[in-house]
Amino acid sequence: MDLEPSPLAQPFPDMPQIDGIMLRVARAGYKNWDRADLTFIELAEGTALAGVFTRNVCCSTEVEMGREQVVLGRARALVVNAGNSNAFTGHRGREAVEQIMAQVAAHLDCNPSDVLVSSTGVIGVPLPKDKARDGVAAALTADEVSWEEAALSIGTTDTFAKGATASAMIGDTRVTLNGIIKGSGMIAPDMATMLGYIFTDAAVDPAFLQQCLTAANRRSFSCITVDSDTSTSDTVLAFATGKAGNPLLSSFDDAGADAFMAALDDVCRQLAHLVVRDGEGAQKFITVSVQGAVDDDSARRIGLAVAKSPLVKTAIAGGDANWGRVVMAVGKAGEPADRDKLGIAFAGHWAARDGLPLPDYDEAPVARHLEGREVDLTVDIGIGEGRATVWTCDLTHGYISINADYRS
Amino acid sequence: MDLEPSPLAQPFPDMPQIDGIMLRVARAGYKNWDRADLTFIELAEGTALAGVFTRNVCCSTEVEMGREQVVLGRARALVVNAGNSNAFTGHRGREAVEQIMAQVAAHLDCNPSDVLVSSTGVIGVPLPKDKARDGVAAALTADEVSWEEAALSIGTTDTFAKGATASAMIGDTRVTLNGIIKGSGMIAPDMATMLGYIFTDAAVDPAFLQQCLTAANRRSFSCITVDSDTSTSDTVLAFATGKAGNPLLSSFDDAGADAFMAALDDVCRQLAHLVVRDGEGAQKFITVSVQGAVDDDSARRIGLAVAKSPLVKTAIAGGDANWGRVVMAVGKAGEPADRDKLGIAFAGHWAARDGLPLPDYDEAPVARHLEGREVDLTVDIGIGEGRATVWTCDLTHGYISINADYRS
Repeated sequence: MDLEPSPLAQPFPDMPQIDGIMLRVARAGYKNWDRADLTFIELAEGTALAGVFTRNVCCSTEVEMGREQVVLGRARALVVNAGNSNAFTGHRGREAVEQIMAQVAAHLDCNPSDVLVSSTGVIGVPLPKDKARDGVAAALTADEVSWEEAALSIGTTDTFAKGATASAMIGDTRVTLNGIIKGSGMIAPDMATMLGYIFTDAAVDPAFLQQCLTAANRRSFSCITVDSDTSTSDTVLAFATGKAGNPLLSSFDDAGADAFMAALDDVCRQLAHLVVRDGEGAQKFITVSVQGAVDDDSARRIGLAVAKSPLVKTAIAGGDANWGRVVMAVGKAGEPADRDKLGIAFAGHWAARDGLPLPDYDEAPVARHLEGREVDLTVDIGIGEGRATVWTCDLTHGYISINADYRS
Repeated sequence: MDLEPSPLAQPFPDMPQIDGIMLRVARAGYKNWDRADLTFIELAEGTALAGVFTRNVCCSTEVEMGREQVVLGRARALVVNAGNSNAFTGHRGREAVEQIMAQVAAHLDCNPSDVLVSSTGVIGVPLPKDKARDGVAAALTADEVSWEEAALSIGTTDTFAKGATASAMIGDTRVTLNGIIKGSGMIAPDMATMLGYIFTDAAVDPAFLQQCLTAANRRSFSCITVDSDTSTSDTVLAFATGKAGNPLLSSFDDAGADAFMAALDDVCRQLAHLVVRDGEGAQKFITVSVQGAVDDDSARRIGLAVAKSPLVKTAIAGGDANWGRVVMAVGKAGEPADRDKLGIAFAGHWAARDGLPLPDYDEAPVARHLEGREVDLTVDIGIGEGRATVWTCDLTHGYISINADYRS
């Protein structure tokens, strides 16, 4: 299916090279399409690795193995297959992953466990070993490609290439962070789901990189939803080559660690937003800010309950400032809340406060705000200091068309 | 908005009179419409009461007060307002409810706490006291109406009147159970949500009636979903007038108690199915049967994760036997499951077993099954004896049209 670019699409940014990272792609032909669908990223020796993965119990072999590899904390290569998720394929799927790892390890003279593999696409069909073998062989010796080409190559039903970049000073060394991502949130046809990769030339201890990625994930990827369906393949990996030559970062006490964390937060948030902007059928980018909850985690759960509510998302799609539906969604979150302290605002205009509609609430400026592409919704729980921001898109006919009208 | 009757609608059944129950309706004019919208049901003295309510934290005044009244276990009247939910209206909403209770109590010479009030419809607008007063006054002296007229009068955006009946032998006494219900599942425009009422002439102790209703609810209303949005007003009440003259039922050791429980289960299940059949935009009625879970509660939660998944619901809407999406939904339920023991069948045809697609799976009969109005999906978790059945409808363009294309 060829989809028009999302109306919320953003241009691919200028992304600098990162020392110790080489990008190559090949045409494995996992689907009947005319494009690169196997991405091979070579990482310098000594690259530190961190990762976060889906909590879906029925996760793919790639996710299972990735979890084990992250514990080791080292990586030499990443292979991403597009068009076949290799999920729910039993031992045959596992053999295909092990074949790729062995093939790349032989070429790089490293351990197979240093080779990370990700796959997204159709479920229940084992990754074809012959196509994988030929594709990897071609990729190993292919010319290097740009970040944008790599971002296109990992995509499946994405409507635009997604990348983000940031930098930070560690002492007097400038380090760069680049990220690429694919997916339309937690959900897309054929289980083609979210895969994100962040690369940096910073020298970072693997355990500390994991600590930073876990924290950044909690404030970015864990704060987005397109339609609440959590995939079997979701993966975010971070690779640090160390080539920038900064003093090794191993804790937040180190000089520059806060700057690195801020840059990682920045890249992760940019990437997460891009996924929402490519949400299936999305016409509006919605920011839900929750304040006054008992704590930040509670605020995030309330925000996600609002962001997942089909009633809220269809109301916004229709340009309807239906704050009653927001009340419902807050109430169903199961978090501490007091109906009589609740406040709701669109773009800073309060529709309700202290559990009551405001008598002088003027819907006209709110209606104008809802006609735009970016919608801001604030929920004040009114009982504490907890805050969180989550992001989602509206629920439209385009979502139904993509998922029901076409056979996948 | 005038909607076509759901393609899944069923004719209103023949429902016998129940001794001790009188149905009356009036036009309060809560909205600008040409129909009865206030229902007044008088109950014989000594009628036992039980109830279950939404767990939405931001529930309506009616729900808050109903919870207190159910503890007392007695009722003399029920008033249902259609078109205004009176939710999120603070003390002014509470005053309106108390006014109705006092007005009816004066007429029947009973305690105000014996008068149950329910309201559904627009949120955030206090129930207008003058319209309520005039409506109640008209209803108190109106002619009696049929069950179908009462079912129509409690509806808001429902596309057909919904009722169910069953009977049971208690010793040599036949008792009757009638139920009426309104709603499109947990969700409908303007928070017009599920209200269900069951009436019987059986003599049942209030505590035992509550025990039975709680059990029946767990197997019926708690096993349906239209789109996962839990309302602020959901209420199911059961009234037992005792006029049949059977020996009082007060525990499952009593003769006839099992038959009464079975009849109550029957009525509740019928009513729950009718709500799904009027689900917004519904084109197909979907039964999800889960077996092999660690226990029945776990099976129910897995079934609801499948039934709530937009990906599964849109796939079925499109006639696509996309069992990969079912795998995803099982995995995201967060319940014990083993990917490598999972089985999935449509209408008895197994697409996958023991965590693998079946090589001889024939999609043709499944595709024919999915073209029909009734879809059966079975999930075998393969690790225990827990079972549950849940019901939902597909997710279609009709849902988006109802909730996004029209301003509510």
